[in-house]
Amino acid sequence: MDYYSSQISKLIEEFSRLPGIGPKSAARLAFHVINMPKEQVEQLANTMIDAKNNVRYCKECYTLTDQEICPICASSERDHKVIMVVENTRDLAAYEKTGKYNGVYHVLHGAISPMLGVGPGDIKLKELMERLQKDVDEVIIATNSSLEGETTAMYISKLIKPTGIKVSRIASGVPVGGDLEYIDEVTLLRALEGRTEL
Amino acid sequence: MDYYSSQISKLIEEFSRLPGIGPKSAARLAFHVINMPKEQVEQLANTMIDAKNNVRYCKECYTLTDQEICPICASSERDHKVIMVVENTRDLAAYEKTGKYNGVYHVLHGAISPMLGVGPGDIKLKELMERLQKDVDEVIIATNSSLEGETTAMYISKLIKPTGIKVSRIASGVPVGGDLEYIDEVTLLRALEGRTEL
Repeated sequence: MDYYSSQISKLIEEFSRLPGIGPKSAARLAFHVINMPKEQVEQLANTMIDAKNNVRYCKECYTLTDQEICPICASSERDHKVIMVVENTRDLAAYEKTGKYNGVYHVLHGAISPMLGVGPGDIKLKELMERLQKDVDEVIIATNSSLEGETTAMYISKLIKPTGIKVSRIASGVPVGGDLEYIDEVTLLRALEGRTEL
Repeated sequence: MDYYSSQISKLIEEFSRLPGIGPKSAARLAFHVINMPKEQVEQLANTMIDAKNNVRYCKECYTLTDQEICPICASSERDHKVIMVVENTRDLAAYEKTGKYNGVYHVLHGAISPMLGVGPGDIKLKELMERLQKDVDEVIIATNSSLEGETTAMYISKLIKPTGIKVSRIASGVPVGGDLEYIDEVTLLRALEGRTEL
């Protein structure tokens, strides 16, 4: 990339290390930043550093937050007896956007994956089991519908069942508005197996 | 976006202002940055600030560079009598990647667009005309093959012709490896008009 001067190349290189940013997007971003007003560049840079320095795990549910206890865990309006287990904070946000879930969460920060060498000890599972010592009615497992997500769901349900706490799994099936023609066979079979009586 | 704590939301917001970054990519980037080692975040932030502070226009060709005169303009191995006019530094880099062009460049930083209110005075045209006072053999116009690029090319050629300096335009046609079936009609007509004898 010596067609650019070294400082531009360095910035392009930094950007292209970010996920989902290819070399062309990285160049586009770099030139955008160079053309941005100085104050805006500084603001972006400082926001990154501040977020990195101040964001940590919620002591209760392990979501990423800039407080000791995240707003959801701190809320008295949420049902603290229902815990939804998700893989990461973005999945938590996806359920929050529905506005219809009133329980709390537990963020695993990953999923069990023998392929990638991620074992039960590498995700926040021990922390989940500790939370179950308190008064909990139900654990809803909302890990992804991928191989890793399913493995993790199975593992967690086996772990929790002996405690007598209710364990459930979010439904897997045809997405709303999905056209059967374009949906993969595994999903179609899953939808069939999970059919409910009308 | 109050599903995230304020510092995370702020970072997502900052990222989503960048070009080509939608809200989902912005969230992905934000969580990636939060999970990056602290030193790497600082390095990314500082690289942005350094680039913003040190990158300026080359005094000769107006490309973005961190030197007074860019490496291409400073090189005695390049033919300074042939100037290729491009819209921006990325277009310059595209031609540099071919490794086959030995002249120098002139970067306009835009193209004439009555629609967007960009006139001849808003791009580095005056600066190009000043360069033509020196000994120049040919000006190759390599603005994009868009409405704005073509308008700019026409405008520049009319401006330069009275000086007697040779003006040329890069060819427009079917891209190498392109399948005629998938190429738009305007390009097909352009390719026909620009046909060369074999």
